[in-house]
Amino acid sequence: MRGAIDETHDASRRSWVESANRRGCDFPLQNLPLGVFRRRDRNESPRGGGAIGDRVVDVAACRDAGLFTDLADTAAEACADPTLNRLMGLGPDAWSALRRAVWGLLLEGDERIRATTGWRTRLVPEMSAVELLVPATIGDFTDFFSSLHHATNAGRLFRPDQPLLPNYKHVPIAYHGRASSVVVSGTSIRRPSGQTLAADASQPVFGPTRALDYEAELGFFVGQGNELGVSRSIGDAEDGLFGMCLLNDWSARDVQKWEAQPLGPFLAKSFATSISPWIVTFDALAPFRVAAPARLQGDPQPLAYLDHGQASDRSGIDVTIEAFLSTPEMRANGIAPTRLSHGRSAELYWTPGQLLTHHASNGCDTRPGDLLGSGTVSGPNRDNEGCLLELTRGGREPITLPGGETRRFLADGDEVILEGHCEAEGFARIGFGACRGRILPAHMNN
Amino acid sequence: MRGAIDETHDASRRSWVESANRRGCDFPLQNLPLGVFRRRDRNESPRGGGAIGDRVVDVAACRDAGLFTDLADTAAEACADPTLNRLMGLGPDAWSALRRAVWGLLLEGDERIRATTGWRTRLVPEMSAVELLVPATIGDFTDFFSSLHHATNAGRLFRPDQPLLPNYKHVPIAYHGRASSVVVSGTSIRRPSGQTLAADASQPVFGPTRALDYEAELGFFVGQGNELGVSRSIGDAEDGLFGMCLLNDWSARDVQKWEAQPLGPFLAKSFATSISPWIVTFDALAPFRVAAPARLQGDPQPLAYLDHGQASDRSGIDVTIEAFLSTPEMRANGIAPTRLSHGRSAELYWTPGQLLTHHASNGCDTRPGDLLGSGTVSGPNRDNEGCLLELTRGGREPITLPGGETRRFLADGDEVILEGHCEAEGFARIGFGACRGRILPAHMNN
Repeated sequence: MRGAIDETHDASRRSWVESANRRGCDFPLQNLPLGVFRRRDRNESPRGGGAIGDRVVDVAACRDAGLFTDLADTAAEACADPTLNRLMGLGPDAWSALRRAVWGLLLEGDERIRATTGWRTRLVPEMSAVELLVPATIGDFTDFFSSLHHATNAGRLFRPDQPLLPNYKHVPIAYHGRASSVVVSGTSIRRPSGQTLAADASQPVFGPTRALDYEAELGFFVGQGNELGVSRSIGDAEDGLFGMCLLNDWSARDVQKWEAQPLGPFLAKSFATSISPWIVTFDALAPFRVAAPARLQGDPQPLAYLDHGQASDRSGIDVTIEAFLSTPEMRANGIAPTRLSHGRSAELYWTPGQLLTHHASNGCDTRPGDLLGSGTVSGPNRDNEGCLLELTRGGREPITLPGGETRRFLADGDEVILEGHCEAEGFARIGFGACRGRILPAHMNN
Repeated sequence: MRGAIDETHDASRRSWVESANRRGCDFPLQNLPLGVFRRRDRNESPRGGGAIGDRVVDVAACRDAGLFTDLADTAAEACADPTLNRLMGLGPDAWSALRRAVWGLLLEGDERIRATTGWRTRLVPEMSAVELLVPATIGDFTDFFSSLHHATNAGRLFRPDQPLLPNYKHVPIAYHGRASSVVVSGTSIRRPSGQTLAADASQPVFGPTRALDYEAELGFFVGQGNELGVSRSIGDAEDGLFGMCLLNDWSARDVQKWEAQPLGPFLAKSFATSISPWIVTFDALAPFRVAAPARLQGDPQPLAYLDHGQASDRSGIDVTIEAFLSTPEMRANGIAPTRLSHGRSAELYWTPGQLLTHHASNGCDTRPGDLLGSGTVSGPNRDNEGCLLELTRGGREPITLPGGETRRFLADGDEVILEGHCEAEGFARIGFGACRGRILPAHMNN
């Protein structure tokens, strides 16, 4: 398992960026997630940076100002690129060196940034002054199905007598997703059209989906790749994982129901996938490592290639992910977004290391910037169900929102907001920011 | 439908490159497929070029020599790139202009190339002196399932009482494939390992696949893209298709059987997909357009968004694809590769235009260089079955090869060779070259 706990995780340390020290801030000194940004008011190319409180650290500009030493210089130089792919390919030592260097620059008492002319806009612009972009060129996107609770709940709707298929507890299930339509938080989502077959119909029709859903997931960015034909060992797999974000795998359930046999979901999910812009690194997540979920009596042990062995007690990660909904009526009436569900990645059946190891077990190559999704993060209780398909029992039992509206699936104008955070005794809370998307009406030429 | 028939298709025209005029040559003057090559003996970056007989036209070098006029200049300039993506994005007018210009340079009697100093190696090097590469950066790879015969034959193995699912004749079925592991013809294929559950076993095991298969397919490269949220109309869809190649969707059937429910094939196919290096353009294919296969009595008409209307009579393309096998024993005994099967794209249930239109019908964006696979091209007879799964009835009925060997699935050292060509009365035969892949033994550390 990667990520020793060191002084960068020390909860007693504060930043001279005061907003980072506020209670509940997602981006304290202990987090330092990475992303790609562009200043709104300048004609400059996108570049990599870090989040601290309500500001962004322009790593390349700090390097230009001479603020990085040899150890972190290569990683800092890669942040001048318009994507983080090159940084992702440098590997864990480079990532850790960059983290420590940025941490040092932002630590209370350090004056180096503030001693630089024009530092407020040049080195640490306000986050409100920048546009945040998809942080990497995503070569391939793979979406897993790693929540046993989600697999069981969703399976029950289609196969009441056999909710969980026999392979589930042996083999991490996934499908290839669409890389082109991964968009960053804040991008509006056009309601897709597609073919559907109504329950009482003999012929399908083409038109806007009537069962638009969200899926609350976590995303994992691949760091160092593996060559075609060469698998990864479970012990080293995490060196191939750069960090995590929030991911909303938008789904058209009526389209999915009609198209997905025998080859899996296709257009039901390829119209858009939203991700949060800040990638929380595995270094930042070190205090939140937990044991993989215990197998129940009768559950199979993982096959050797997926067995963490003695590392099992830290092979999981405990991120809480919450899904909120805001409707046009709620916004008009001043009603705050309502929480639909919350789940924990600690309860996923498969660990991030197992997902990547399995992915490469057939020799499939992965590249820096490839994206893996966890699948919907659901838990054992009703309020842990991470999509409307589960919450409304396939649309049969609408949920009631504050203000009295009901929803089976998403309506035009609805906004889904995912949020995530980690907490552990003795450590500073760190957050993921938000992953937002608002539904636009379907194009009517369809 | 794209592609008027013009003088570039005139079968009576010859090239001054004599090898292009030989009977049976895949690359006569009427073909002019495009690809990416690199000279073996120079330290130069890859670039786009065309195939003519046993030579390659270095388009960028011809442009440097001043041989392209304004009309084709933009397209010729794009061939200096190490991939064809930019050329693909320029659209049909640019592609046609390039075709006509290259045709004119190679036409019998034209002296312009041969009037250039060092033309033999500089402008039209021998194909044997170059390395051929994957011709585009493939952003996403989608594999369809457009042969009714294949869907029925494969379905019968899993569902004898319902070989064809109810959605098949209404909605083009596809799965997202893996873009990273698309390799060019000639690349060896490492036998993948994976989880499988033997018929008589209660627990799966991990190890080298025992059911390695090929799938004889056609690939379609996307030309001009469509923006996220904006669909394509069936009438314009072919403007989005640049050209075709041969594609082998290598498959591990035992892995597929265990992993593919409920989300479709994943590691069973992501270890490698081979493509032929030369892209035959839709302009070159104009003489080989045919009517889409007639729907049988009782078959549904395509929904409006997939209906070619009056263009139906030219919406299909008739490419013959053949699959050959060569084993180590056959090679040792001087036995030529044996043909396992042959199929025709004219018999596919869905046309290329329908595939791309459907792909974009939910607003999913496509980008120049995206790759679509047709799915296994099978036909109505036993010798039209485009994979071993069909030919051996799921491995139950081995086939016998010349020399007496038998095969249920592929053995180490076996080489699969796909070839393709088009023929039509009054037109020159054009070919696709070959798509080869030889099986390497599994890595034993798995």
